[in-house]
Amino acid sequence: MTGRVSLVGAGPGDPELLTLKAIKRLETAELVLYDALVDPETLRFAPQARRFFVGKRAGRPAISQEAIHRLMIREARRGHQVVRLKCGDPFVFGRGGEEALALAAAGIECEIIPGISSAIAAPLLSGIPVTHRGLASAFVVVSGHAESAYAPVLRSLAPGSATVVVLMGFANRAAIAEELLSAGWPPQTPAALLIGISHTGEEAWHGTLEAIHSATIDDRDNLPGIIVVGAVAALAAIIAAQEREPSSTRASASLG
Amino acid sequence: MTGRVSLVGAGPGDPELLTLKAIKRLETAELVLYDALVDPETLRFAPQARRFFVGKRAGRPAISQEAIHRLMIREARRGHQVVRLKCGDPFVFGRGGEEALALAAAGIECEIIPGISSAIAAPLLSGIPVTHRGLASAFVVVSGHAESAYAPVLRSLAPGSATVVVLMGFANRAAIAEELLSAGWPPQTPAALLIGISHTGEEAWHGTLEAIHSATIDDRDNLPGIIVVGAVAALAAIIAAQEREPSSTRASASLG
Repeated sequence: MTGRVSLVGAGPGDPELLTLKAIKRLETAELVLYDALVDPETLRFAPQARRFFVGKRAGRPAISQEAIHRLMIREARRGHQVVRLKCGDPFVFGRGGEEALALAAAGIECEIIPGISSAIAAPLLSGIPVTHRGLASAFVVVSGHAESAYAPVLRSLAPGSATVVVLMGFANRAAIAEELLSAGWPPQTPAALLIGISHTGEEAWHGTLEAIHSATIDDRDNLPGIIVVGAVAALAAIIAAQEREPSSTRASASLG
Repeated sequence: MTGRVSLVGAGPGDPELLTLKAIKRLETAELVLYDALVDPETLRFAPQARRFFVGKRAGRPAISQEAIHRLMIREARRGHQVVRLKCGDPFVFGRGGEEALALAAAGIECEIIPGISSAIAAPLLSGIPVTHRGLASAFVVVSGHAESAYAPVLRSLAPGSATVVVLMGFANRAAIAEELLSAGWPPQTPAALLIGISHTGEEAWHGTLEAIHSATIDDRDNLPGIIVVGAVAALAAIIAAQEREPSSTRASASLG
């Protein structure tokens, strides 16, 4: 049998947010290489596969990116069905494109299976639609890990013209908020800080852009933090409340 | 039993790209309200449900948005399990936020289940990662249906600072390309036009920003068209080719 690598998105955390196609590939996988944020329950879909953890522990990668490439290529050449299980979507950050290129360079058959990205799903699961008629007809997803990554976008974007979603920028949240304020975003723009949404221990803070720097929410070593800025963030107060309360208790809080 | 509405993302088209949670809700649904782009195969997961088509035919809605709200509210109040099945993700365009607010206003229990958005998945399935180390640390998703929706973002965004993905803008593709060129984007910026990706009849055009206005690809009445602009669009030539060819024929075309 010809070996193959499937780059598979595992979604934001909840194993029920895997796609049917992802589950099928896990069921027939002989080897699964998985990231730190992949829920252990997810691996139950691959009972017969060998499993390698290739993510980060305490901020340090278990093995190098190049070693992941070599491992995938070697196993596919041996005729194995390899699943590279990546949190979220394989092509939203997380170096999925690099893995696809490395496999192409080695002549390995590769398929890419999209996953639910936390860039959209973490706001959604917190009651925030990234787009909403009259409030936002665009959204921007940007890496907040370094100023060189986020500054060109956040400095130039016309204030209020799009919902801003920042991944991997939780530690830089004060600087990122300052960047938007300097660019002319109104201080009262609604904002949210979301930690570990769809994981055990999830937490959300809702406030305004100017209050981000003093928000009482802590980093967590092992859970991703997401920053959302834009008028849509205010909808969480209505939508998320409704999701969590039974029908009868909400009637008096209706929008009319 | 208390009635409930689940706003469920059906993903980009392929029924295998539904989530496990979406399938579970369909299996127990008593009523399914579905959009035009939902694959008929998807409805097989809801064999016992009544099904209402509430999408657009020939560009005109089958029923009004307000009528959809009324129908969901009425059925939930009768104690039914209602699934509102929306193409892509319920909170990326498509008025899912409005539906959630209408249900909140009526005091109806509502859950929102994310889906694979074609904003990310259509590029992915065409071999384009919306982010890629060294090429793009951000992406913008914008509605192209009207100049007032896309112009504020596309005029202000620093050229090349993010991958641009335009949904619902296929008919305006020449004007959208012109907007980016006027804003200073290099004419040779890689670009792609993607039609009906993950649907029968899918088609892709690959070229440059300046060639979009003369691209030989036609609108299709019933399939969505997506515009992608940015350096990452050039990766499709390597990644998509690899996906479609067996291992042996690609060895000589390796990247080295």
